[in-house]
Amino acid sequence: MKIVRFEAKGQTGYGIIEGQTVKTISGLPWDGINLTGNELPLASVKLLAPVHPPDVFAIGLNYKAHADESGFKYPAAPVIFLKATSSVIGPGESIILPNMAPDEVDYEAELAIVIGKTCKNVREEDALSYVLGYTCGNDVSARDCQLKQDTQWARGKSFDTFCPLGPWIETDMDPDNAAISLKLNGETMQSSNTNDMIFSCSQLVSYCSRVATLRPGTVIMTGTPSGVGFSRKPPVFMKPGDTVEVIIDGIGTLSNPVSADSLSM
Amino acid sequence: MKIVRFEAKGQTGYGIIEGQTVKTISGLPWDGINLTGNELPLASVKLLAPVHPPDVFAIGLNYKAHADESGFKYPAAPVIFLKATSSVIGPGESIILPNMAPDEVDYEAELAIVIGKTCKNVREEDALSYVLGYTCGNDVSARDCQLKQDTQWARGKSFDTFCPLGPWIETDMDPDNAAISLKLNGETMQSSNTNDMIFSCSQLVSYCSRVATLRPGTVIMTGTPSGVGFSRKPPVFMKPGDTVEVIIDGIGTLSNPVSADSLSM
Repeated sequence: MKIVRFEAKGQTGYGIIEGQTVKTISGLPWDGINLTGNELPLASVKLLAPVHPPDVFAIGLNYKAHADESGFKYPAAPVIFLKATSSVIGPGESIILPNMAPDEVDYEAELAIVIGKTCKNVREEDALSYVLGYTCGNDVSARDCQLKQDTQWARGKSFDTFCPLGPWIETDMDPDNAAISLKLNGETMQSSNTNDMIFSCSQLVSYCSRVATLRPGTVIMTGTPSGVGFSRKPPVFMKPGDTVEVIIDGIGTLSNPVSADSLSM
Repeated sequence: MKIVRFEAKGQTGYGIIEGQTVKTISGLPWDGINLTGNELPLASVKLLAPVHPPDVFAIGLNYKAHADESGFKYPAAPVIFLKATSSVIGPGESIILPNMAPDEVDYEAELAIVIGKTCKNVREEDALSYVLGYTCGNDVSARDCQLKQDTQWARGKSFDTFCPLGPWIETDMDPDNAAISLKLNGETMQSSNTNDMIFSCSQLVSYCSRVATLRPGTVIMTGTPSGVGFSRKPPVFMKPGDTVEVIIDGIGTLSNPVSADSLSM
């Protein structure tokens, strides 16, 4: 099942996609899929980020090949960091290169877990039963902030628009065996499979739940494969006018354009 | 004005304190202080964390004496990290020493800024006009996670109950000249003044707003003075049965007991 959050005629709501139709539901999807009976053509709605997460947990260095390219050892435990929830945007929305750090903004294709039931201290074997589903995520990162100026990654990972999510939440897939790729202006920059993760989705949910109570809608970004821009020779960073796509088999494609920052102080 | 969030007879709401009375308001305090006409004795309500923040930004190493005791250079720019919003608790609620890391849980008295109006890219001279008020915060930290096991501070700062806030939001005070102290079991462990901050509140709001859109209710923890437990000789960490109090002149006292973790997997 594909769960979407959408805007139509100035209203926002949740629905499920069947073919080219959105069947709207009442309430929030983690409270149950309660169809209202209303249907809208998929082409008539604007898809939004499929969730407004109360927290965005993210995992660093969780693909072997990406740890290698970044020059880090494989972590003994998941490397947790947080992204500000204010950084979440939806499919089609612009990733804005921030005035504070426009020059080294990089992409990271990631499988994003969406929690469906409050969980705390869950065992690995039970962990996936607390998951509502999965969506595509782009862990956009200002590498100059993250790797040169700061020791903490929070700032470089939390600029507005740095957490594209979407296009919908897929409830029926194997998160530990899904092809994942990223295209920049149509060229494949990352291509891997989630089976290359160092820590599986069930391990990540269990681990994070030992730290924090994971509430419905909480997102866990599960790390990115190799091929990110800063480890290329020469490095590749995103520029205004670019289009970046995260493609995960079984989910779909999250596409976002890239824009300069028009805000000034 | 002191703005409280409270529970009474199974209902939660916001109000303002006048003497020993809570005058309840309708809606959220950043939408305006609209008195309902209802009044409750202060002693009859349970005070809650005064805000459910959409994000908790926090600043490291923002008092000179604390940077000194931690062995860090003074930062050239504010050191931003994030705490999971799931870690927020209110006055009187227990700080729980997590099973994952119970041994080196430390306190940090902090002035917490509560944003009242959406702000983005605000100038320092305008920044405080976006602030609703100030409350006491305790940036509880598992030092073994933060300083020995992890490079990222997110995990060690984000365990459940690691962000006590309260007892209320004070709207009328000078945030850059307030005595701040912390008592552990009645003994003063930290004693300073916010005028010793490296970056002032207006600088912090401006800086954070250049990274992220700060929405109403967003909290910025402004850093802690010297005297934290891990830099004492011998180190002092919190134990079950302890009581920790953050006291800020012009606001009041945030008191929390400390408990062992009773949850198991």
